[in-house]
Amino acid sequence: MSNVIETDCLIIGAGPVGLFAVFELGLLDIKAHVVDILPKVGGQCSELYPEKPIYDIPGFPSVTGQALVDNLMKQIEPFGAQYHLGEQVDVVESLGTLEKPRFRVTTDAETVFEAKTIVIAAGGGSFQPKRPPVPGIDSYEGTSVFYSVRKMEAFRDRDVLIVGGGDSALDWTINLQPIVRSLTLMHRRDEFRAAPHSVEQMRALVASGRMTLAFGQMTGLEGDGKTLSGVTCRGTDNQPFTVSCNTLLPFFGLTMKLGPIADWGLNLHENLIAVDTEKFETSTPGIFAIGDINSYPGKLKLILSGFHEAALFAQKAQRYIYPDKRVTFQYTTSSSSLQKKLGVS
Amino acid sequence: MSNVIETDCLIIGAGPVGLFAVFELGLLDIKAHVVDILPKVGGQCSELYPEKPIYDIPGFPSVTGQALVDNLMKQIEPFGAQYHLGEQVDVVESLGTLEKPRFRVTTDAETVFEAKTIVIAAGGGSFQPKRPPVPGIDSYEGTSVFYSVRKMEAFRDRDVLIVGGGDSALDWTINLQPIVRSLTLMHRRDEFRAAPHSVEQMRALVASGRMTLAFGQMTGLEGDGKTLSGVTCRGTDNQPFTVSCNTLLPFFGLTMKLGPIADWGLNLHENLIAVDTEKFETSTPGIFAIGDINSYPGKLKLILSGFHEAALFAQKAQRYIYPDKRVTFQYTTSSSSLQKKLGVS
Repeated sequence: MSNVIETDCLIIGAGPVGLFAVFELGLLDIKAHVVDILPKVGGQCSELYPEKPIYDIPGFPSVTGQALVDNLMKQIEPFGAQYHLGEQVDVVESLGTLEKPRFRVTTDAETVFEAKTIVIAAGGGSFQPKRPPVPGIDSYEGTSVFYSVRKMEAFRDRDVLIVGGGDSALDWTINLQPIVRSLTLMHRRDEFRAAPHSVEQMRALVASGRMTLAFGQMTGLEGDGKTLSGVTCRGTDNQPFTVSCNTLLPFFGLTMKLGPIADWGLNLHENLIAVDTEKFETSTPGIFAIGDINSYPGKLKLILSGFHEAALFAQKAQRYIYPDKRVTFQYTTSSSSLQKKLGVS
Repeated sequence: MSNVIETDCLIIGAGPVGLFAVFELGLLDIKAHVVDILPKVGGQCSELYPEKPIYDIPGFPSVTGQALVDNLMKQIEPFGAQYHLGEQVDVVESLGTLEKPRFRVTTDAETVFEAKTIVIAAGGGSFQPKRPPVPGIDSYEGTSVFYSVRKMEAFRDRDVLIVGGGDSALDWTINLQPIVRSLTLMHRRDEFRAAPHSVEQMRALVASGRMTLAFGQMTGLEGDGKTLSGVTCRGTDNQPFTVSCNTLLPFFGLTMKLGPIADWGLNLHENLIAVDTEKFETSTPGIFAIGDINSYPGKLKLILSGFHEAALFAQKAQRYIYPDKRVTFQYTTSSSSLQKKLGVS
């Protein structure tokens, strides 16, 4: 516990709404740390539609997801938030009182925060890999079955089966091939959604005999329930075959799950977090929820609504963090003290 | 009544929030007319701080008031709203029922609308000229005292006193001088807030004997209570003097007043319009209020909050205007039907 990070506000989620929360908090002198399960900021905007135009952000006739995120990062730069990416918030414990909340938050990377307030801006939840519909696969997860590659070295000299036809499947095929003992890539059919250049590289590896390309679907797993010895498959010609391997990497895409947040004791409404419309506070004082993850009468899952919610929750967070400060509302256009914080005066 | 304009929604106020309402309504196939007392769109952004940067519009590290308005006009262009500028909404009568509202709205320019819904996005209210603190001035208003120049011809051959030191006072001095019989400009001191070039032009007119420049303040009016014959003044040296004139144009700046809206029977809270946070509807079903003019718990007078309110009220307006339509919420990023409306697919 010697490395506990103290913060005024812990923002869970680095999508556009979590990023704009940094701005609204910063105007009120509230320092923030931001945690996101993805390895980069931007949330769905950067992950699902970086190049797609969005038409309903006020003032932008058209803006791509990535451009919006880039603009927001520039806008919040003066406030020096610290980012903890590729980490999932796991456990939240309350250490404080109703009037003076305080939370200890631990991530799956063992980062520990002590935060006066928490704001959940986790969008549709956290991205989780889709599990293939193969009986008993969960018992192999973490020992023989992996949905992501955190350290390539962990796969050295293994016999690996990669399943999938998208960028993740192809990229890891190319990157792992030099260090594994044997490698098979299997996909439903001979058509790949990955970048054409990656597909070419993979076909060159197949042509030179350094890996195997198979077409078909998984039907079952062979092994002792912990260590895999093979994967049974059915080919496109309906013939069964088996791939001998001790490691399986299925890349079936990502799905959205509420994740550990569901276990924090907050009032939930159809997997969304119920909040009021004055402070966007959850049923636990000091924990707020803004953006697509919250629920209230009239709620629309619009980025612009999350921006509004960020501004209002920050006012209440200020009262927890600076209980004795006289609250005066100021405008960036006219307040020289806000302009000083923004570094523009 | 033959020229009644039928509309789905009448938007009162062409500031950024009123303009964005055109967008949110447009996505739902709701046609709008927009009325504003100012002669141009943009509200306070264009009138009070066109060149001043705003720092708290999400996605814009910095944007001037005018640039934001220009961007919004471009964004709403596909929806073909019609603008009625330089008009003040005066009288609102209800013609409908609670379930099927309908309103007849008349402006001070005698434009008549019949609207299924109304949204008040009037910001701080309407800009009204500040009345100088001179006893009995109201009885001369409209005959000898004017706060704006609608038709220059109305001032031909008059003896005019213009009071003020800003752009309006200087601009009308220069523009009216060629057609009036005599002209005096009076200001508190020999320092003008107007554009330097205008001040130079005015000084040239004084130097050539075509007008008079005086320094002092008004103390009283002379006349029969309807037609002015002179204005009594006190000079900067405290000596009294009189300016003979039959016309007085005081330019003491603008102030914000709720105006006729205060008489529409809506629930008001400290001169603001009380609304709910689900539909941003006033106490009169079918009349909504968004932006700085509304009031609800947690309200912040931020442009970004008005944008959020525009999105939510539009959903309820849709239910009044298309009561039988099945409501499906769509995103601009993914919906080809919305993209068609926006003219981008």
